[in-house]
Amino acid sequence: MEMWRTAIVDAGPTHLRVRGHDVPTLMREATFTDLIFLLHHDRLPSPAERRLVDAILIGVADHGPGAPSSAAARLAASGNRQSLAAAIGAGVLTIGDEHGGAGSGCMELIVTGLDRSKRGGLTLEAAARLAVDEAKSAGQRLPGFGHRVHTDVDPRVAMLFTLAADANLASNGMAYVRALEEAIHDRIKPLPLNIDGALAAILVDLGFPPMVGKLFFIIGRVAGLSAEVMEEHTRERPMRIKISVEYDGVPPTRDGEPV
Amino acid sequence: MEMWRTAIVDAGPTHLRVRGHDVPTLMREATFTDLIFLLHHDRLPSPAERRLVDAILIGVADHGPGAPSSAAARLAASGNRQSLAAAIGAGVLTIGDEHGGAGSGCMELIVTGLDRSKRGGLTLEAAARLAVDEAKSAGQRLPGFGHRVHTDVDPRVAMLFTLAADANLASNGMAYVRALEEAIHDRIKPLPLNIDGALAAILVDLGFPPMVGKLFFIIGRVAGLSAEVMEEHTRERPMRIKISVEYDGVPPTRDGEPV
Amino acid sequence: MEMWRTAIVDAGPTHLRVRGHDVPTLMREATFTDLIFLLHHDRLPSPAERRLVDAILIGVADHGPGAPSSAAARLAASGNRQSLAAAIGAGVLTIGDEHGGAGSGCMELIVTGLDRSKRGGLTLEAAARLAVDEAKSAGQRLPGFGHRVHTDVDPRVAMLFTLAADANLASNGMAYVRALEEAIHDRIKPLPLNIDGALAAILVDLGFPPMVGKLFFIIGRVAGLSAEVMEEHTRERPMRIKISVEYDGVPPTRDGEPV
Amino acid sequence: MEMWRTAIVDAGPTHLRVRGHDVPTLMREATFTDLIFLLHHDRLPSPAERRLVDAILIGVADHGPGAPSSAAARLAASGNRQSLAAAIGAGVLTIGDEHGGAGSGCMELIVTGLDRSKRGGLTLEAAARLAVDEAKSAGQRLPGFGHRVHTDVDPRVAMLFTLAADANLASNGMAYVRALEEAIHDRIKPLPLNIDGALAAILVDLGFPPMVGKLFFIIGRVAGLSAEVMEEHTRERPMRIKISVEYDGVPPTRDGEPV
Repeated sequence: MEMWRTAIVDAGPTHLRVRGHDVPTLMREATFTDLIFLLHHDRLPSPAERRLVDAILIGVADHGPGAPSSAAARLAASGNRQSLAAAIGAGVLTIGDEHGGAGSGCMELIVTGLDRSKRGGLTLEAAARLAVDEAKSAGQRLPGFGHRVHTDVDPRVAMLFTLAADANLASNGMAYVRALEEAIHDRIKPLPLNIDGALAAILVDLGFPPMVGKLFFIIGRVAGLSAEVMEEHTRERPMRIKISVEYDGVPPTRDGEPV
Repeated sequence: MEMWRTAIVDAGPTHLRVRGHDVPTLMREATFTDLIFLLHHDRLPSPAERRLVDAILIGVADHGPGAPSSAAARLAASGNRQSLAAAIGAGVLTIGDEHGGAGSGCMELIVTGLDRSKRGGLTLEAAARLAVDEAKSAGQRLPGFGHRVHTDVDPRVAMLFTLAADANLASNGMAYVRALEEAIHDRIKPLPLNIDGALAAILVDLGFPPMVGKLFFIIGRVAGLSAEVMEEHTRERPMRIKISVEYDGVPPTRDGEPV
Repeated sequence: MEMWRTAIVDAGPTHLRVRGHDVPTLMREATFTDLIFLLHHDRLPSPAERRLVDAILIGVADHGPGAPSSAAARLAASGNRQSLAAAIGAGVLTIGDEHGGAGSGCMELIVTGLDRSKRGGLTLEAAARLAVDEAKSAGQRLPGFGHRVHTDVDPRVAMLFTLAADANLASNGMAYVRALEEAIHDRIKPLPLNIDGALAAILVDLGFPPMVGKLFFIIGRVAGLSAEVMEEHTRERPMRIKISVEYDGVPPTRDGEPV
Repeated sequence: MEMWRTAIVDAGPTHLRVRGHDVPTLMREATFTDLIFLLHHDRLPSPAERRLVDAILIGVADHGPGAPSSAAARLAASGNRQSLAAAIGAGVLTIGDEHGGAGSGCMELIVTGLDRSKRGGLTLEAAARLAVDEAKSAGQRLPGFGHRVHTDVDPRVAMLFTLAADANLASNGMAYVRALEEAIHDRIKPLPLNIDGALAAILVDLGFPPMVGKLFFIIGRVAGLSAEVMEEHTRERPMRIKISVEYDGVPPTRDGEPV
C-alpha cells in the first residue's frame, strides 16, 4: 500500500504535533475548543474566536433524548450493551441535511452569495435579493431561516448574536445573512434567522468552509450523545423501549389469493 | 409509547437547561469542556479540574490517519462522500477495549482496588499487590501499564502527571496506580504507567465512573476524526486507498474436486 | 503496510473465487443462502441444510418498524436522507446480546455443555442439569428459553422445529437443548425453547461456531432494515418522528443556587 | 408519540406476515432471496426472477479484505472486539455513490431515459444519444460503463448478461443500456457495460426503483462483511493493522514562530 499523507498530525516515537503545535504543550496551555479550531483551521483561535466556537459547541451539544440522534443512540444502547461506541455511532448516523445540517446548508448559501457579490460587483443586498428570488421561484427553503414551531423562541439564537457582536468579529458573513433576512421579509414573509443561520454566519466569518457547519454539529452533539448513552446504561433496563405500530398494507394472502 | 425520562436536559419552547444550568448562559460563560464535564457529572468543574479534562481530551484527539479509528473514517469518506456522519461514525465504531478502551479498563481496576482496600481494611499497597498477583496468575495484562513499543516515550504521559500534581487533585486513584506500578515492578517486571493509566487515575479522582474513560476517548477522538475526514474530502480523490491482499485458502474446486 | 491474508476470497484481474468456488459459476447455480453458508463454513450446504438456513434468515429478517433495529434505522433515515448506508448501519448497531444476540448466547451454552459431556463422560441430561443448576445459583437467565410475554406463541418456533426434524439433521445440539428444556422445567419452572434456542441448536448441529448466531441475525435483519429504510424514504417526510420526554432531574440553578 | 405505520410487516402475538405472506409458511417454502424480493417489491419473484436476484447478491457479496467496506470492517473488528455489529456497521458505512453505488446511479440514468423516451416519443436510441451528449458536454461520467483497469475482464458481467438473456426477462432497461453503450461508443469511446450497468438494467426490468441498486449491494455485501469479520476475530490478533503515514504539513511552531 502506498503511504498515506497528512498535514494534520505528525506522530513519532517521541513527539506528537498537530499542525506544528506540540501536543503536550497544548495539553498544558490550550483548551479542547482551541484544539478543535486548530484541527479544522490553519491556526489557533483568538480568545474572542474561542468564545464563539465554545458557544456554538455548547449550543448544539444536547437537546434531550427525543432528538433523532439521541433517540437512535438510546435504542442502540438498549439492544447492544457491549459497545458504547456502537450506541454513540448510531446517534451520529442520524445527522444529515435534515438533522443538524442546516448550518452547512446556510454556509453554502453565504459562500455563494459572497462570491457572487465579489465577482459580479453586486452589493450584498443585491446578491441577497437574487438568492431569495431564485429560492422562491425554485420553491426551495432557505436553510438558516424560520422556526419549525412559530411560537418558539430559541433561547440560543439571541445569545449567539450578542456574542458575535461583542466579539467584534461580525464580518461579511453576518452582514449577508442580515441582508438575506431582510430580502426574505420583503419578498416572501418574515422569517427570522435561526440558530443554524447564526452559527453559519459566524463560522464563515471565522474562515471555515461549509462542511464545518455539519462537522462542528457532530463534535458538539457527540458530547451529548455520550451522556445520553451513559444515562441509558445506568438508569434504564435493556430493551425497555416500546414503539406502537399500525399495519396498513395488503391483507393476508396465500398463493396470491386472499385468505 | 411511554414517555422517556431524563435528568440531563430540560428542553421547552423557550428554555433549554443542562442539569439545571441555562444553556444560553453556559454559551456566554462556560467552555465546551465545562459542558462535557457537566453532562457526565452532577456539577461544573473547578478551573483545575477543567484543565485536566482539557488535557485528556486534547491528548486523545488525534494520533494521525494510521490509527484504526482514523483509517476506518477515511475509508468511509473515500467510498461514501454523501455523508460526513457516516465517515465519522465508521471511525467511532473501531473504538473498543482494544483501541481507546484501556482507560476504562484501568478505571475498573482502580475502582475495584479502592473498594477492596476500603471494605477489607487493606492499605492501597496491599490491595495493589493482591491485584497484581491475581492478574499474574490469571495471565492477564493490567490495562494502563506498559508500552506497545518499548523504546517509545509517550510525550503526553509526563504532561498529564505534571498537570495532575499541579492541580493538587491527585487523590486515591493516583495513589493506587502508583502502588500498582510498584507492585508490577516488584512482582512482574518494570512496566511504567502509560497515558491510559494516567487518565484513568485522574478521572477516578474527579469522581467519574469507569465507562467515562471510553466515553471521553470517543468525545476527544471525534474532533480528530472530523478533521481527518475533512482532509480526506478536500485533499484525496474517492476510492484512492489500495490494500494488498494475499489469498492463502483452499485451491480452486469444482463440485468438491480440485480443478 | 504488511499484506493482509485471507482464506475467503481470491480476487484477481480475471477470476473471483470464494473458498475455491468460482463466483460466476455460483451466480448461475447457487442461491444467496448457499453463498452465506459457504462464506461462514468450509463447504456449500446440502439442500436440507440450505432449507434450514433459509428458514432462519427469513425468520429473523423483519419484525416491524418498532423493533430497536428498525426504529433506529428509521430515525437515521429521517434525519439523514443522504446515505442509505448510514440508516441501515444505525439499525445494525442496535444488535447486541440484548437484541438479536440470544442465539449466540444459547450456542455458547450448547457448545459448553457438549464439550463438558464429552470430556467428563456425562450424559447430555446430566450436563444439562449441571448447567441449569449453575445458572440458577448464579441468578443468570438461560438464553434461548422463555417468552417475554407469556401469552405469546411465536409462530416461527414450531416451524423451525418441524423443518429441523424433517431435515433429519437434528443432532447433539438439538438433543442438548431438549435436555436443557427438561432440566429447566424440573429445576426452575416450565420455560419453552424459543426461536433463539431453536436456531442456536440448528446452527450448532450444522457445524457453525457461536458467533454465527449473531452474524446470521445481522445478515437476515439487514434485508428487513433495507426495506424499512426504503419505506421511510418513500412514504414519510424527514424529521417526522416525535418522542415525548419528561425531565425529572435537578431544578434550575444559577452559580450553584436554586433560581 | 403517534403510532408508526407500515405496509411491510404485520406482527401480532400469534402471527407474523410480510406483505400479507405468513412468515412461517415462507420459512418452509421460500428462499431468503424470495423474501428479499418481497420486502422491496409488492410480490414474490418467479423462479427466473429469483435466479437473477440470487446472481446479483452473490456477485456483490465479497471482493476480499482490501475493498473499502471489508477493510473498514476489519479495522473495527481489530479495535473493538466487543461488538460484531459495530464491525459490520463500519463496513456498511463505506458504501456510497463511490463504492457500491454505481448501480443506483445507472438505474437513475435508465429511468430518466425511459421516461424521456415515453413522454417525448423518442426511440430508445435517440434518448440514449441525448443522454450521452448531455453527459459529455457536462463532463460527467456515465455510471455503469467502463472498467477502472482497462485490462480487467470482470468475470461476473458476462454471467449476468447470460442469465438475463436466459431468463427472457430483458426488457426496456436492458435495451436502453445497450443503446447507451452504442451511443457512448460512437460519441465518446468504446466503454463496455460493467457489472453495475448490468445489474442496474436487470433491476429496472424487474420493477425496482433506483435506490434498490444500492440497497441490494448492501444486503449482498453484508454477507461478505460478516465472513470477513469472523475471519478477523478467529485468525488475527487485535490491533494488528499498521498503516504507514507521512506528514507533509507545516513544520513545528511555537507561539506562531518556527522552532
